Amino acid sequence: MRLRNVKNAMEILRGSSYFVENAFDYKGKILSLFSGSGPVHLEIGCGKGSFLIEMAKKYPNINFIGVEKYDSVLVRAIEKANMEHISNLKFFCMDAKRLPEILIHDIEMIYLNFSDPWPKNRHHERRLTSSTFLKIYDGLFVNDATIIQKTDNVILFASSLEDLSQNGYILQKVSLNLHETDIPNVMTEYEKRFSAMGQPIYYLEAKKNGK
Amino acid sequence: MRLRNVKNAMEILRGSSYFVENAFDYKGKILSLFSGSGPVHLEIGCGKGSFLIEMAKKYPNINFIGVEKYDSVLVRAIEKANMEHISNLKFFCMDAKRLPEILIHDIEMIYLNFSDPWPKNRHHERRLTSSTFLKIYDGLFVNDATIIQKTDNVILFASSLEDLSQNGYILQKVSLNLHETDIPNVMTEYEKRFSAMGQPIYYLEAKKNGK
Repeated sequence: MRLRNVKNAMEILRGSSYFVENAFDYKGKILSLFSGSGPVHLEIGCGKGSFLIEMAKKYPNINFIGVEKYDSVLVRAIEKANMEHISNLKFFCMDAKRLPEILIHDIEMIYLNFSDPWPKNRHHERRLTSSTFLKIYDGLFVNDATIIQKTDNVILFASSLEDLSQNGYILQKVSLNLHETDIPNVMTEYEKRFSAMGQPIYYLEAKKNGK
Repeated sequence: MRLRNVKNAMEILRGSSYFVENAFDYKGKILSLFSGSGPVHLEIGCGKGSFLIEMAKKYPNINFIGVEKYDSVLVRAIEKANMEHISNLKFFCMDAKRLPEILIHDIEMIYLNFSDPWPKNRHHERRLTSSTFLKIYDGLFVNDATIIQKTDNVILFASSLEDLSQNGYILQKVSLNLHETDIPNVMTEYEKRFSAMGQPIYYLEAKKNGK
């Protein structure tokens, strides 16, 4: 994700009902952010938000939380969301490593879309599917865990398959060319541009049952 | 694998010490086929044999068995082997489904190189990594099972990842571009031709421990 400095980013975020500034206050009571009591799905690294905004409109009975580290990126998601009327969508601006301070067995599904691949071996543990992060997610998930990943990066995808498998996840669906399957798919901004160039999108769905 | 009718294929096979015509006689005493008592590795669908001949020369302490369904194909492997002096290599001509009639907890590793992808969904169970075959392999393996697969086919590869994961295998190594990794690799005939066209080779190594 290219970062541009956005003036007054935090001001724009604070002015939106989609942005949860004091996310840490919702520890153990995450459903109070939403009007419905449906399951909560989380996108880590939600970027400019298109995916999650479309998902929230498509699945009104699911509550969606988007987490993005950079306010200068999240502001684009917030500006887009501000043009909609959606009651099942909130955004946090924070490092994913701090999520266990808020979410305690609240999440049914995590989406990882086109995450930073950190292609160098020595940066392996920075990948959002590394053992380091999978252990963090364990505490976020309700009884059963589901992770859905999309990426165009072969190193990240191979590493995710290994790490998920080695951390108790079972691969339910795998595709090396998502757009040629009948798997339901909401495209991200990046995915639209990238696949228009004829490049394949890699997809996996992994589950871990029970605790 | 293109099949050409080879006259007198069975005659050529029978004339070679690398060919085991009466494989079923070796049930429970597979090591008597070899001079060394090392581990036994199996290639299912060994085709024209280059991979296994090179492996046998490279790893003299491992005993290799190649299985090929078609005598008209296996004859090419046998002709190649006949030009070598290798004591740790044998070939069977048979359907892999009958292997449990010979091999009983004898095998440490199975290689599946560029197997027929059977890309249609309705032919899923014909793929050599389908649950049907994985259950057959359970009885062939010693305590711990290792399967190494190479393919250029995205459908077979994705299906293998799912089926192995759902049948108790843990993915140890996965690559979507084998030739750009430092994973030791002996190329098959098909692989040499295919990768010369710039196409990626998919690779996985999966293990199942204990029984």
